[in-house]
Amino acid sequence: MSGEDAPAQQQNAVDQKQETKPTEEPKSEPPKTESAPAGAAEAAATPAATTEKVPEEETFTYRALVLTGYGGYDKVKLQVKKGKPTLKAGEVLVRVKACGLNFADLMARQGLYDRLPSPPVTPGMECSGVVEAVGEEVTDRKVGDKVMVLNRFGLWQEVAVVPANHTFLIPEGMSFEMAAALPVNYITAYMMLFDFGNLRPNQSVLVHAAAGGVGIAATQLCKTVKDVTVFGTASASKHEAITQGGVTHAIDYRTKDYVEEVRKISPKGLDIILDPLGGSDTHKAYNLLKPMGKLITYGAANMLAGQKKNLIAVAKNWYHQFSIHTLSLIQGNKSVCGFHLGYLDGETELLAQVMNTILDLYKQEKIKPRIDSTWHLEQVGDAMRKMQERNNIGKVILTTEPMPEEEKKEETKKEDKKEDKKKDDKKKDDKKKDDAKKEEKKDDKKKEEPKKEEKKEEEKKEETKKEEK
Amino acid sequence: MSGEDAPAQQQNAVDQKQETKPTEEPKSEPPKTESAPAGAAEAAATPAATTEKVPEEETFTYRALVLTGYGGYDKVKLQVKKGKPTLKAGEVLVRVKACGLNFADLMARQGLYDRLPSPPVTPGMECSGVVEAVGEEVTDRKVGDKVMVLNRFGLWQEVAVVPANHTFLIPEGMSFEMAAALPVNYITAYMMLFDFGNLRPNQSVLVHAAAGGVGIAATQLCKTVKDVTVFGTASASKHEAITQGGVTHAIDYRTKDYVEEVRKISPKGLDIILDPLGGSDTHKAYNLLKPMGKLITYGAANMLAGQKKNLIAVAKNWYHQFSIHTLSLIQGNKSVCGFHLGYLDGETELLAQVMNTILDLYKQEKIKPRIDSTWHLEQVGDAMRKMQERNNIGKVILTTEPMPEEEKKEETKKEDKKEDKKKDDKKKDDKKKDDAKKEEKKDDKKKEEPKKEEKKEEEKKEETKKEEK
Repeated sequence: MSGEDAPAQQQNAVDQKQETKPTEEPKSEPPKTESAPAGAAEAAATPAATTEKVPEEETFTYRALVLTGYGGYDKVKLQVKKGKPTLKAGEVLVRVKACGLNFADLMARQGLYDRLPSPPVTPGMECSGVVEAVGEEVTDRKVGDKVMVLNRFGLWQEVAVVPANHTFLIPEGMSFEMAAALPVNYITAYMMLFDFGNLRPNQSVLVHAAAGGVGIAATQLCKTVKDVTVFGTASASKHEAITQGGVTHAIDYRTKDYVEEVRKISPKGLDIILDPLGGSDTHKAYNLLKPMGKLITYGAANMLAGQKKNLIAVAKNWYHQFSIHTLSLIQGNKSVCGFHLGYLDGETELLAQVMNTILDLYKQEKIKPRIDSTWHLEQVGDAMRKMQERNNIGKVILTTEPMPEEEKKEETKKEDKKEDKKKDDKKKDDKKKDDAKKEEKKDDKKKEEPKKEEKKEEEKKEETKKEEK
Repeated sequence: MSGEDAPAQQQNAVDQKQETKPTEEPKSEPPKTESAPAGAAEAAATPAATTEKVPEEETFTYRALVLTGYGGYDKVKLQVKKGKPTLKAGEVLVRVKACGLNFADLMARQGLYDRLPSPPVTPGMECSGVVEAVGEEVTDRKVGDKVMVLNRFGLWQEVAVVPANHTFLIPEGMSFEMAAALPVNYITAYMMLFDFGNLRPNQSVLVHAAAGGVGIAATQLCKTVKDVTVFGTASASKHEAITQGGVTHAIDYRTKDYVEEVRKISPKGLDIILDPLGGSDTHKAYNLLKPMGKLITYGAANMLAGQKKNLIAVAKNWYHQFSIHTLSLIQGNKSVCGFHLGYLDGETELLAQVMNTILDLYKQEKIKPRIDSTWHLEQVGDAMRKMQERNNIGKVILTTEPMPEEEKKEETKKEDKKEDKKKDDKKKDDKKKDDAKKEEKKDDKKKEEPKKEEKKEEEKKEETKKEEK
């Protein structure tokens, strides 16, 4: 697997040129029937291929997940790519071993994340792997280095070309799955808690989706500070897991009003609230802050309802979007912060500092990513579904390991059932839409002083929706 | 001056009962012509009075500054009060030695600060003095303790009754003037920089009004952290002073665009911006932030234009008031915080912690309040004018020391000139109003996408103004 002997031919993630056309069933596309995609990748990746000295520059292929258009889980397709990469100065080629799934990937699939270029494009903002080639001017990475990678997109494929300063050396003994689970969640949780949040002993923190990737990272990081109380929301079935992970008070947001639950225990409110939800939950968070409290909002998960873009959910999120005047902040002595790692990609030095701190904490065994499940590239749809339907506890990982033949046959059987699943999904989506509509009506009634401008915004969205119909 | 032998009779700051009526010239009111107010105070304060054993409970008087109505400098009048204080549990009576002037006092005089009850009321949120009596349940203060006091209002008088936990022991060797200069400015600067701001080595900070009380405190506190770059705005005549005080780059905001000046030196922007100005300067500050930058707004000094409430300036400030959506915060990775000590008066434990840290820094000689000038109670108008016209470098202090006779004569001469001064003030105010009008027009032209709702708000204010006229 010596990278220099067998330079991987690959499209630049930014300037993607598809040499294979996206089809419904990627498996039927490659020459060697069903096993071909994995086979092709093996050819490029195994030492055997190198020793034979075939003209690899021309035959080199690798598998890549490609978002072919905005929509449901089936819009991310497994394709086989050909192409000779020309590494620019400062870049490295990484043979990818494992990739992390993030909420932004789910948003991106629905067209709700503006840091991903238009389809067709390969998603994926974190992975782990082995350096297979280095470009000019790269001095601190060498062929064979095990690295984790953070990039704006383009990492859900077997080989990826990235700037060397987007890679971080994997500590001794850390698995590729673990390494792929670490960067996005832990950097996000760390910067929110310790940069914006300025977390100190004896403080209280609310962690939404405490069983999710960021939630688990945040809980572990909270426990590195003395006597911090962590309120964590999750459905009841996950309470044992999050409590063992460090959550002090687990709250079932599906059956209880989390604001009331927090007030029962902490009547004065909280010091730090991490808000991945957006919309009306941001308002609730703001009101739950103590004086000198910090609200850190880092997403709009409330926008996601169903596997396709749900315009009602999006409109509702906009309608309820939190906006704050300085006078209110001054009188409340409060802080409102926004965080998203996807918009920090220019801050390589800052991110490297944070990553080093996080890796130190890992080496001291103070933090450890929790893997929920690992999926083959062929299974990316199911992997996304698991995360989006919030059935995961911890990180959902993709592996580039070839899928064993027997599993593939299993998968084929599943494929037959997929049509049924699709129907189910549609039903679910329709139900969610109905629910959203109902709740919206309820909310509208509740809402005091509706702002005309925001209403217009909503009406616009509604119109767009009609047009699309 | 033993407090227990001579219990001070005084109105409770919250439940103020005036036993003397406010008049235009307080000096003509007491029995002993001009020198009476000082004389009465001396009688209560000097040991001589105690040894004579006259029935002090009835004759006990003290001087107090009283805001008699919202408006110009002359609305704060020196009056003589009578009354026997009944200390509640947990309270102490403090013989006040020196008082600090703060921007909120200036806002309050114009009716722009909602933490001061309606006139007639004694302003003043910080002072220093000696404990003269302690109420029940007070265990950590005793008669004779030298203390500094932080209170919502009511400290600009010779005796003040406050909760014991609003007092802090003055360190050995610190003068009363110094002690009166410390609490508000240093707590404000400290909490902004180290709680919300999370200031760390190598960061950059913008300090507006760097020669003001908070500005000087913030600069000194910045210098306690390694390699922090301080950008400080002040008029050119103060540059030498603020540079000596620790400002790295002094900017004359009157002749230069501070945004441009900062960008020249720090093209990527700043880590922390302290904003006491409000209005359009808050927008500028937000745009000047680096990713992960923190904007901390703590006032609306732009509202103050002239000695009386300037409705145009107020309306303009409202019109330009900064409002932020979470989406912008997320995409910019920014933080917006509001701070005002006046709204933190319930947080006694938190404030005590901060105060202890500040006093430690003082003892280590890392910080030291800078006194601009000290004024007698009779001179409060001139003291406020000095601060409001930004002619001070450092803290403006009031002392309760009786004014020497010769100075009083001088003051009387000045009184004759006051009418002229008033005329001057009026001219100045009118000019400022004109300037504000002109600038507003200019701003209106510049402003993109004016929001209808905000415009209506402004129109309302304008109407109010017309009605008042």
